[in-house]
Amino acid sequence: MTRPIVFATDYSLEDEFVGVCHGVMARIALNARVIDLTHSIRRHNVFDGAFTLRRASRYMPEDAVWLAVVDPEVGSTRRSIAARSASGAMMVGPDNGLLSMLWGSLGGVEAAVEIRAEDVLIQPVSHTFHGRDVFAPAAARLAMGKPLEELGPAIDPASLVALRVPVPKVDRRHIECTVTDVDSFGNVELNIHPGDLEAAGLFERFRIGDVSVRRVTTFANGSTAECVAIEDSQGLVALVVNRGSAASLIRVREGDTLILS
Amino acid sequence: MTRPIVFATDYSLEDEFVGVCHGVMARIALNARVIDLTHSIRRHNVFDGAFTLRRASRYMPEDAVWLAVVDPEVGSTRRSIAARSASGAMMVGPDNGLLSMLWGSLGGVEAAVEIRAEDVLIQPVSHTFHGRDVFAPAAARLAMGKPLEELGPAIDPASLVALRVPVPKVDRRHIECTVTDVDSFGNVELNIHPGDLEAAGLFERFRIGDVSVRRVTTFANGSTAECVAIEDSQGLVALVVNRGSAASLIRVREGDTLILS
Amino acid sequence: MTRPIVFATDYSLEDEFVGVCHGVMARIALNARVIDLTHSIRRHNVFDGAFTLRRASRYMPEDAVWLAVVDPEVGSTRRSIAARSASGAMMVGPDNGLLSMLWGSLGGVEAAVEIRAEDVLIQPVSHTFHGRDVFAPAAARLAMGKPLEELGPAIDPASLVALRVPVPKVDRRHIECTVTDVDSFGNVELNIHPGDLEAAGLFERFRIGDVSVRRVTTFANGSTAECVAIEDSQGLVALVVNRGSAASLIRVREGDTLILS
Repeated sequence: MTRPIVFATDYSLEDEFVGVCHGVMARIALNARVIDLTHSIRRHNVFDGAFTLRRASRYMPEDAVWLAVVDPEVGSTRRSIAARSASGAMMVGPDNGLLSMLWGSLGGVEAAVEIRAEDVLIQPVSHTFHGRDVFAPAAARLAMGKPLEELGPAIDPASLVALRVPVPKVDRRHIECTVTDVDSFGNVELNIHPGDLEAAGLFERFRIGDVSVRRVTTFANGSTAECVAIEDSQGLVALVVNRGSAASLIRVREGDTLILS
Repeated sequence: MTRPIVFATDYSLEDEFVGVCHGVMARIALNARVIDLTHSIRRHNVFDGAFTLRRASRYMPEDAVWLAVVDPEVGSTRRSIAARSASGAMMVGPDNGLLSMLWGSLGGVEAAVEIRAEDVLIQPVSHTFHGRDVFAPAAARLAMGKPLEELGPAIDPASLVALRVPVPKVDRRHIECTVTDVDSFGNVELNIHPGDLEAAGLFERFRIGDVSVRRVTTFANGSTAECVAIEDSQGLVALVVNRGSAASLIRVREGDTLILS
Repeated sequence: MTRPIVFATDYSLEDEFVGVCHGVMARIALNARVIDLTHSIRRHNVFDGAFTLRRASRYMPEDAVWLAVVDPEVGSTRRSIAARSASGAMMVGPDNGLLSMLWGSLGGVEAAVEIRAEDVLIQPVSHTFHGRDVFAPAAARLAMGKPLEELGPAIDPASLVALRVPVPKVDRRHIECTVTDVDSFGNVELNIHPGDLEAAGLFERFRIGDVSVRRVTTFANGSTAECVAIEDSQGLVALVVNRGSAASLIRVREGDTLILS
């Protein structure tokens, strides 16, 4: 049974890079279902990629091979890795932390290898496009059932690069938190749950700098110029403006720290 | 036999929303072919979505499950619906008129239900992302052959929200019509046929405000700054500029009313 | 055995044109794997399309049906063609040179026909959307195994329109070459190999107008404001700026001629 492949990159669809990787995979695993999770991760932004994979983890097939490429250090000495999670999923990508929040959601890494097998790499391996020459063929081999161990030498899971997940500080009437995502609607996701607002005593309203934010249940409860806080589709607190952009209104970007009071 | 799914939204590909819906469908119906009709419907524009689905209707597989999401009222009391057309297609989406021009092209609605079955919804159902939690799983279940009636309680097809299709007024040397589409080339589609121009006596040329428009057979017959009228790929009259944008030249947007004289 | 289809256009994903072509193919060949190589070829730019297909040729399945549409002359008398390469691949598109660099990479054209068979075309054939009415159905029929000869009358392969591949001039300390691609990172690909730089005696550095360019092995070796030359993923010389745009720095576009000295 061929495994499905979940494919996420920062390549965008403005070039043929994504399509070329699809071709490489089709040559090896023509019948594998490839799910394009997104190719709009912010360019070179490993943090954005890691959060995107984590958000998607429970909605993808459990036996998926995750193929993720956000790789500002391509061509340097950073390792190319493949790993198996405790849940049975496979993961392929650069060893720069990109996959680390994903495996955190999938029970941790059970085994990992450095992708080096000559019969897996597409020769000659370029210095600039490991998605095509290293990662896509490795993912397709795994989808076809090739054992992880045949992709290259085993490496210690503890040696893999991992990103720190930001932790909010919740005090009395004061929360310091992090913007984990700004989507294309301009909705701003924070790393706090509605329960954190309760714990801080921020029940009906709170402030972010000059902006007063009201807590509501759905988009439709906000007027069109008002910034409101809802529980988003991840169960997290998100700042939104009905048919507008909260990110523009309060001028924030992903990774920013915000004070709610 | 798994039915193919035709998937259209206003999500854009700037986020992972479309990819997450694909994952949800793949968990239920891994072998269903999913055709991404478009994810570039203008945001929150139900009218644009309805026309897009109508234009595509005769080019998609007849047994398709149509999954369409343009849903400005998500999280409010608007119903989530699934319906079967007289032609045998299935349709899934919000009850806001989005699907109404489609079923008008497919012989009308034969049966409809409100999607409420607990074993269909992905729990917990968010207030903001029914594409993922309600519509995608419902479409995938239908693709796998689950009977429509098992998705939730039957509703009266006559109670479904339907959009009014605009009707042109054709008089002697005068037509009042509606812009039904502006594509990314800037081509402007009107809700009239070449026969309507004949009926109004507008044979070789007509005017729209200050702009003189010549009737020709193909793009290639217009010079590069000239606005010409052709029969488009829907058999409708479209205003085009060879290698340019008619929408910019005559300054119109979808939904605008135009006077041809 | 259904052949895979490689699909490339300049339609963009801003409209439903790509999705409608997918629908047309799915009605004929539901099980054919369709690889979207790219839909971001620069609009009406046959040269860009031809180079894109050539770059991808060795990474796609060998038995693929290539479906390519960049068609500024749609609706004129230019022919619609299907052809078989010496390598066994099939190619479908307008006869304007778009496919010519591809077949150059695939051993040349073995047989070609003009697509005219009534049972292949989608009636009525529009003047403006041959992707939907002519090319997509032809590609899907070929994927299903319909013999090339049944798509229409044979034409002489020597009569097909072919683009001239630009050839660089390499002299002592002086190279005149062509920009064959500018990708969305702003990386600038030239039609020369590292060996051409050696042959011209341009070993460690060279100039392009005011800009001094250093030769390095990977992106990561350049500082963030410096233009460097690397061997790109095609084995060609590319000008890049680490995390920046070389195209902006040296102000060039695809097709431009550059002097390296």
